[in-house]
Amino acid sequence: MTVRIGVIGAGWIGQDHIRRLTHVITGAEVTAVTDLDAAHAAEVATGVGARALPTGQDVIAAPDVDAVLVTSWGPTHAEYVLATIAAGKPVFCEKPLATSAEDCLRIVEAETAYGRRLVQVGFMRRYDAGYRAMKQVIDAGEIGVPLMVHCAHRNPTVPASYTSAMAAQDTAVHEIDVLRWLLDDEIVSVQVVTPRRTSKRLEHLQDPQIMLFETANGVRIDLEVFVNCQYGYDIQCETVGESGLVRLPDPASPSVRSAGRADTAVVQDWRERFPAAFDAEFQEWTASVAAATAPTGPSAWDGYAAIGDATVQALESGRIVGVAMKDRPAFYAGGTAGGTAR
Amino acid sequence: MTVRIGVIGAGWIGQDHIRRLTHVITGAEVTAVTDLDAAHAAEVATGVGARALPTGQDVIAAPDVDAVLVTSWGPTHAEYVLATIAAGKPVFCEKPLATSAEDCLRIVEAETAYGRRLVQVGFMRRYDAGYRAMKQVIDAGEIGVPLMVHCAHRNPTVPASYTSAMAAQDTAVHEIDVLRWLLDDEIVSVQVVTPRRTSKRLEHLQDPQIMLFETANGVRIDLEVFVNCQYGYDIQCETVGESGLVRLPDPASPSVRSAGRADTAVVQDWRERFPAAFDAEFQEWTASVAAATAPTGPSAWDGYAAIGDATVQALESGRIVGVAMKDRPAFYAGGTAGGTAR
Amino acid sequence: MTVRIGVIGAGWIGQDHIRRLTHVITGAEVTAVTDLDAAHAAEVATGVGARALPTGQDVIAAPDVDAVLVTSWGPTHAEYVLATIAAGKPVFCEKPLATSAEDCLRIVEAETAYGRRLVQVGFMRRYDAGYRAMKQVIDAGEIGVPLMVHCAHRNPTVPASYTSAMAAQDTAVHEIDVLRWLLDDEIVSVQVVTPRRTSKRLEHLQDPQIMLFETANGVRIDLEVFVNCQYGYDIQCETVGESGLVRLPDPASPSVRSAGRADTAVVQDWRERFPAAFDAEFQEWTASVAAATAPTGPSAWDGYAAIGDATVQALESGRIVGVAMKDRPAFYAGGTAGGTAR
Amino acid sequence: MTVRIGVIGAGWIGQDHIRRLTHVITGAEVTAVTDLDAAHAAEVATGVGARALPTGQDVIAAPDVDAVLVTSWGPTHAEYVLATIAAGKPVFCEKPLATSAEDCLRIVEAETAYGRRLVQVGFMRRYDAGYRAMKQVIDAGEIGVPLMVHCAHRNPTVPASYTSAMAAQDTAVHEIDVLRWLLDDEIVSVQVVTPRRTSKRLEHLQDPQIMLFETANGVRIDLEVFVNCQYGYDIQCETVGESGLVRLPDPASPSVRSAGRADTAVVQDWRERFPAAFDAEFQEWTASVAAATAPTGPSAWDGYAAIGDATVQALESGRIVGVAMKDRPAFYAGGTAGGTAR
Repeated sequence: MTVRIGVIGAGWIGQDHIRRLTHVITGAEVTAVTDLDAAHAAEVATGVGARALPTGQDVIAAPDVDAVLVTSWGPTHAEYVLATIAAGKPVFCEKPLATSAEDCLRIVEAETAYGRRLVQVGFMRRYDAGYRAMKQVIDAGEIGVPLMVHCAHRNPTVPASYTSAMAAQDTAVHEIDVLRWLLDDEIVSVQVVTPRRTSKRLEHLQDPQIMLFETANGVRIDLEVFVNCQYGYDIQCETVGESGLVRLPDPASPSVRSAGRADTAVVQDWRERFPAAFDAEFQEWTASVAAATAPTGPSAWDGYAAIGDATVQALESGRIVGVAMKDRPAFYAGGTAGGTAR
Repeated sequence: MTVRIGVIGAGWIGQDHIRRLTHVITGAEVTAVTDLDAAHAAEVATGVGARALPTGQDVIAAPDVDAVLVTSWGPTHAEYVLATIAAGKPVFCEKPLATSAEDCLRIVEAETAYGRRLVQVGFMRRYDAGYRAMKQVIDAGEIGVPLMVHCAHRNPTVPASYTSAMAAQDTAVHEIDVLRWLLDDEIVSVQVVTPRRTSKRLEHLQDPQIMLFETANGVRIDLEVFVNCQYGYDIQCETVGESGLVRLPDPASPSVRSAGRADTAVVQDWRERFPAAFDAEFQEWTASVAAATAPTGPSAWDGYAAIGDATVQALESGRIVGVAMKDRPAFYAGGTAGGTAR
Repeated sequence: MTVRIGVIGAGWIGQDHIRRLTHVITGAEVTAVTDLDAAHAAEVATGVGARALPTGQDVIAAPDVDAVLVTSWGPTHAEYVLATIAAGKPVFCEKPLATSAEDCLRIVEAETAYGRRLVQVGFMRRYDAGYRAMKQVIDAGEIGVPLMVHCAHRNPTVPASYTSAMAAQDTAVHEIDVLRWLLDDEIVSVQVVTPRRTSKRLEHLQDPQIMLFETANGVRIDLEVFVNCQYGYDIQCETVGESGLVRLPDPASPSVRSAGRADTAVVQDWRERFPAAFDAEFQEWTASVAAATAPTGPSAWDGYAAIGDATVQALESGRIVGVAMKDRPAFYAGGTAGGTAR
Repeated sequence: MTVRIGVIGAGWIGQDHIRRLTHVITGAEVTAVTDLDAAHAAEVATGVGARALPTGQDVIAAPDVDAVLVTSWGPTHAEYVLATIAAGKPVFCEKPLATSAEDCLRIVEAETAYGRRLVQVGFMRRYDAGYRAMKQVIDAGEIGVPLMVHCAHRNPTVPASYTSAMAAQDTAVHEIDVLRWLLDDEIVSVQVVTPRRTSKRLEHLQDPQIMLFETANGVRIDLEVFVNCQYGYDIQCETVGESGLVRLPDPASPSVRSAGRADTAVVQDWRERFPAAFDAEFQEWTASVAAATAPTGPSAWDGYAAIGDATVQALESGRIVGVAMKDRPAFYAGGTAGGTAR
């Protein structure tokens, strides 16, 4: 059975996923596309033999759409996800699930009321081979009980539209999700430390930031977010346990010796860093839709838990901010696990 | 368009490729399967919704077969490849292309007479991201003109049926092919040096062996083949040029510190080492069949060039043996290049 | 000229320095030794052809003592250092310079009044080749203006007498000194974060601790102190600047591949980690004494600046604690620099 | 007791050793210096408070010379070493011990006749911490019985006076000595393979060369000697045994990430690569002279065994050349071992 997918939002991330679903993933085809720009939707749809439809609601309702992919503008995510749940169809929503905790909770409630998991959120790091191998080491007890995690998320540069709050809302969400999954634990408080700002970019921006998270189990996480680090896209993660530590591998790259240096290349963006993770994410999601089983990836609850509100408050107040999460519904038991590495 | 593929030989490598074509590769489906064991063929075929056919000739002739995959016993390869050429269909043949240089040349001649490339041989390393990145470094001139290559091919262990000649015929063929491609050069002589044998395995076996190749451009290659090295499956390759060197990366793996050691895992077999290369190989081949263009991968000429006869003679004689290849037909101009890394 | 050195305190660190001064360092000889245990002092003195003297004051006053090495119990350091200054002789004092900030300042004042630098404090990391190479990278501008430093200090285990306050007073002092030198900057505030405690050791102990320092220039430092990490003695330091980062090297060690792992050894104590630094420290100090020039290593001011009082307060209060240092006397201009790597 | 050393030959290597004996090594002083250029000898001698003497024979005979260091022109080594043996004094001779096997054997015979070891040859790699750690791994059985060694010796460039034969005589001697020591084995045959020459330097030179050695125990060694590799001074050594392998570490150096690359520096000459080995070598030799015990380092027999005549013949003939060594006198039993790493 080929899963027929309708896509809401044909911006560049939407287009990249359409390419992936059409040419990389087996068992999927894109049958309907919509976009605010109707002409653009028509062009993209034609390129893959799909129909262009006027609105997201049309895509959700279309009889030749088995499942929906939401890649529209963030503030519209909640509306489309809720409508797809109402239609009883599986929905894959790019992060963020919604732009407020309230909207995330509305989705959680709707899905719980529906009685079966329909929602998967696009946190692809759980599908990265390096993170999965790291989780295996932790789960196998090779480093003992985790006590601390040291992380860094570095981009070479960001556009001028990037704000200090986006360090939490757009950038750190990936770390928060993958750390919750890695540790099978919840974040309970956050503090943000503000180093001297880089002079390389953007006067309005607090860059870098160091985010300090505490989990329910008492694990302490420090996360450097530095989005104008100049030299490359660099993701670091080291988990220290009672008897050892494990470090996320850098991508494999040939080492070169020339002109007095031994070096390897550092990748320059996330497309180079996580291509296989995106493919695995959509392959597993497609398979779960085809099999009519619950998605194995990040849930609506995970989408809610990764919301960066507390981190932004911590940045703005300079204080330690408690993370006031609702209790996790039994519906989401099994919790933070996800991806086939379980 | 979905490419319909007929498979000749449903042993474990055949079955693995059937799985790949069915579940991993987009745009391909297996429609016909044959095997010496008809019941087994029927079972495998049923599992993927294909027909079982009595003989390889039936598969080649079947109207719902657009292209043929030969994964039968080595000595039967030539017959099936020649028959597929005669039928004017594309054929992917697992290595070796044939078990003698003569048979390889018959295939080369048949394909040349046909007037268009139909044959691709299963040397998957050209599709490995590490080798491709290494080739980019070389082709970009970052290390200057290549002068030497130091290689190692190590398996943890081999079955008792493995013979000393198989070090060249079965194991080193992969290195020879990827080195010809990496350097865009031909091997002109070979010598085999025989170190003290490992006492860990198999009295009948000369293991390890060090193969010394010379290329037409004067590059010297030393290749350690050690198929009972105990510790893991380990592929090493370092190319030294006039101004620098480049080293094939080891697979990315988390580093662990515990109990007084900092370590990473070494993979244990080629399935763990090259999975993405196999996928890319078949994805690119399927695309070339769908587009009715020449395959971009290793050609019949490459299959001929990798034949290990001279290396076996060198092992048995203890002498330097010249590699007496025919001149490359203009038909194969562009030569050793292959794979999209060109 | 051979520098004649008198040693106050012949415990194991004193004995190790006596061995070093006698057998490793050129241009030095130990001529007098004292210890609370007179018989022990006699035995140690005899072993290197020196005299045993009854008290530290006798050592300081002895005419055949050109310079004094203080390796007695910490609380006695201030008294001996002050007496040596009063005698106008150079003095090398193992860390800590004194056990209170007040005593450190008394020494600073005495030395300033004397009008010439006589005191060097035993912070040997400034003499480590790895730290020196790291400082060269920073000073050369290769990573731009420093913004953050991520550090870890891990011991495999500590004795039961170790207290939570000693993480700052005994362990972190080394990091604080080397960071002040590396960055040429002063620490202005500190906070201590307390992760879940390791269950491996010592109920009375908060282990690990994460210390967060802010410098006058706005650099943010996070330092993990984990003194029962089980796996080894591991010192990590990564400085992130506006355009790049530099990481302290691990000690060079052969890599081994066996039994499915590629590994290197992790050292087990500081004697294995910093032996060459201790040698260089004493060689340079001896040379400065012989030349009658100011010592090039850590000064009394550095000894004062490394005092861990604020960190202990931060640990005990759970708050951010400002570091209230006196203004640096002009006498110590040139400041935190030290060691020949300047 | 301070060992009084007379130095024959005050060229730059002689001067470097004089500096080392005077300022780095404890228990040694240089009391006499000679050089072909008498004015130069006077200047060097004055600098360290020694006497200049007219000839090497004068140095050997001087009553205030306890031991002799020979750092003169290679062809004069044998004469001075023999004279020092005749005088019954210890002698440290920089490599080569002599420029012909015959002269080496004359020294071996003279020392044997004298009845006690007096000669040490300047192969300093046995004192390098990396090689010593590698030998410990091998001797501890961690990789099983050694079967193969892969080595490389690369210099960034050599002067125009360097000849193809010097690759064996001057460069590979260090590898041969350290390999004999590492494996506790003797070389029995050699072959030289000649890759395409680098175009970067020196038309008269065969550079690089690959030397293939066979040992008495059947170990096969391949050694790349590439003396104009441009990028740095790079020494590689990997020993492969029956159950694992061990690789010589590169020198520790900070890793830097900047401008899209992660890199470390490669050293540019042997002075940067082996400084601690030279210091350890002379410190141990001085101690053995002071203690009037046999030197623990490379012996006259080791000097004889490292002579590169067979390698030069192999290069010039293109053939495999047997190494026809005399039987080792019982006097040198214990054999290739040396250095305190035993």
